[in-house]
Amino acid sequence: MDYRSLIREVPDFPIAGVLFRDISPLLQNAEAFSQVAMDFSKMIDLENVDLFVGIESRGFILASQLAAKFNKGFLPLRKAGKLPPPTIKQSYKLEYGEATLEVVPASQGAKVVICDDVLATGGTLRAAMELCEKAGYQVEDVLVLINLKFLNSLQFRNKEIKSLLQYE
Amino acid sequence: MDYRSLIREVPDFPIAGVLFRDISPLLQNAEAFSQVAMDFSKMIDLENVDLFVGIESRGFILASQLAAKFNKGFLPLRKAGKLPPPTIKQSYKLEYGEATLEVVPASQGAKVVICDDVLATGGTLRAAMELCEKAGYQVEDVLVLINLKFLNSLQFRNKEIKSLLQYE
Repeated sequence: MDYRSLIREVPDFPIAGVLFRDISPLLQNAEAFSQVAMDFSKMIDLENVDLFVGIESRGFILASQLAAKFNKGFLPLRKAGKLPPPTIKQSYKLEYGEATLEVVPASQGAKVVICDDVLATGGTLRAAMELCEKAGYQVEDVLVLINLKFLNSLQFRNKEIKSLLQYE
Repeated sequence: MDYRSLIREVPDFPIAGVLFRDISPLLQNAEAFSQVAMDFSKMIDLENVDLFVGIESRGFILASQLAAKFNKGFLPLRKAGKLPPPTIKQSYKLEYGEATLEVVPASQGAKVVICDDVLATGGTLRAAMELCEKAGYQVEDVLVLINLKFLNSLQFRNKEIKSLLQYE
């Protein structure tokens, strides 16, 4: 599947100097959208997954898709204040200021795969991994649709984060 | 499927006096999560759906799940400023202040089903319907997991909004 032709490049969005990769055309294409789940599934051990974890909010799309295709549960990592208590929190630095992710605590050490759309500098994804482990989940894998490799060297257990598309 | 037992009631969240219905236990339950898609599919004409539309951000979970199960495309309705141009916008009133939803314009009058988790007063869902039609989509149906009927009398083409769970 030629995913790259379904990613629209938008210069200077959301701010001047940034080349935004818009995945809208890919998501709207039923065949390509379905293929994303199939290709992701080949990168992981589905037998060892209880929940697909989506990072709010575009990560929800990919995690929910995988949960639906492969009959697993879905777990959201939400922005601060959205989930009712009790939750576990993890704050992390942004270029300007700070953000916080929250999750409900794990009941029985569920095995999870964390999903997001784009890996840029990696701050959010690193916080997501730390949060899941702190909350009692067993992180099996980390999947992103697009890895902007020139912006990060983020790893998961000494290996590259798994991605369908890489920009060097 | 006894969905009701998988909805956790949280008093006084997010503010005093509100009884929050937390769908987290349902989403985490693989069997129940899958059944949601199957039950929704019986309420609509799948042959007449090109895209499932998710309202940011919990609507993403349901729309993506349906798109994945039934091999359709996914379309996000996003909060203001998240989608690159060109977009179509629709503002609507909240209890305090105003909010805006955005969507990319339709290319060929795609047939869509709008999805969200909870229908409360209906302001967001009404704006979503208006926005989709303004942007050139053909709205076929509107699905919500939970309809808090005591808070609204929202209709879609003179019929009740379709929901899996109702609270009177």
